[in-house]
Amino acid sequence: MNREKNVFEHVEKRDTIFRGNYLNLEMLKVKLPDERFANWEIVRVKDAVAILLVDKKRNVQLVRQYRPALGRVLLEVPTGLLDGKESAKSAAVRESEEETGYRPSVLQDLITYAHAVGYSTGMITLFLGTELEYTGKIHLDTTEFLEPVCMSFDELLQLVKTNQIIDAKTILCTLLSEELVSNIS
Amino acid sequence: MNREKNVFEHVEKRDTIFRGNYLNLEMLKVKLPDERFANWEIVRVKDAVAILLVDKKRNVQLVRQYRPALGRVLLEVPTGLLDGKESAKSAAVRESEEETGYRPSVLQDLITYAHAVGYSTGMITLFLGTELEYTGKIHLDTTEFLEPVCMSFDELLQLVKTNQIIDAKTILCTLLSEELVSNIS
Repeated sequence: MNREKNVFEHVEKRDTIFRGNYLNLEMLKVKLPDERFANWEIVRVKDAVAILLVDKKRNVQLVRQYRPALGRVLLEVPTGLLDGKESAKSAAVRESEEETGYRPSVLQDLITYAHAVGYSTGMITLFLGTELEYTGKIHLDTTEFLEPVCMSFDELLQLVKTNQIIDAKTILCTLLSEELVSNIS
Repeated sequence: MNREKNVFEHVEKRDTIFRGNYLNLEMLKVKLPDERFANWEIVRVKDAVAILLVDKKRNVQLVRQYRPALGRVLLEVPTGLLDGKESAKSAAVRESEEETGYRPSVLQDLITYAHAVGYSTGMITLFLGTELEYTGKIHLDTTEFLEPVCMSFDELLQLVKTNQIIDAKTILCTLLSEELVSNIS
């Protein structure tokens, strides 16, 4: 789009300066609208999915896990990275079962969002998962240590509204599901 | 807390492997609950603030800007990094004025959240800003190119609900302000 080319910046050059297991670090050379250049550090990560699992009694299945970047244990919805050709929906179903032992048979799209627009390529797609079947097939990566947590949706909503939950995807799943969950009977 | 030490991981060692203008990359050596070790790549960024500015007619002041990491132009609420000792509230007021020319005299806390718990230290505090005064004192960094956008809160809410806005902080500001904005008269 011409308009964007003229009014805004565009990327002239892209160097990968670190390749990791989880993320790559790239240095971008950006051409500014006034013809000057600026360097921009960005992080390339895989896209992800996350899912709020709600059963017929309006109970939710969450996980507690330690997050090294923040140095604390967080309460979160099940989540995982999107690998290669797997669809977001099938990744969400797989992660549900692997992390909680519950498999949803109905998925509703909530939203797809960019989690850190200032420096990250990452997008996360959120779902509400219902009609849960307990298969017990929990399967964690060898470095993954999760603790399952079950509570009512109303308790979760209260934790979000009092800012006791700080994970963005869990907050968004909860706020975007409120109306849908109120229709579960 | 003992419980967390035993059940979950903890960080044994921390090396900074890249120092940038915007972010640092650190490699953590994490001790797992089963006594093994894992390496973990994390990104250290400054915390940030963002603010939804709503006037008495329920119009919102937003900005469009190019985001190099995503390679596209996004519609967002005003935002900025927290520098040193400045409080989140005063940073939010300052960024409002610098990016839009509007200065809010009333700020309401919406939430503080971690935007990328898998790999980032970053926290963002969101506000609703009302009682706007137009001072016109727009002041952008030399590499910042923003386009002001004004629309009704209802239009913004519609853009969020139809997933035409993908920026996490803007989505959260909108959803968390809906009830508060409905009380503006």
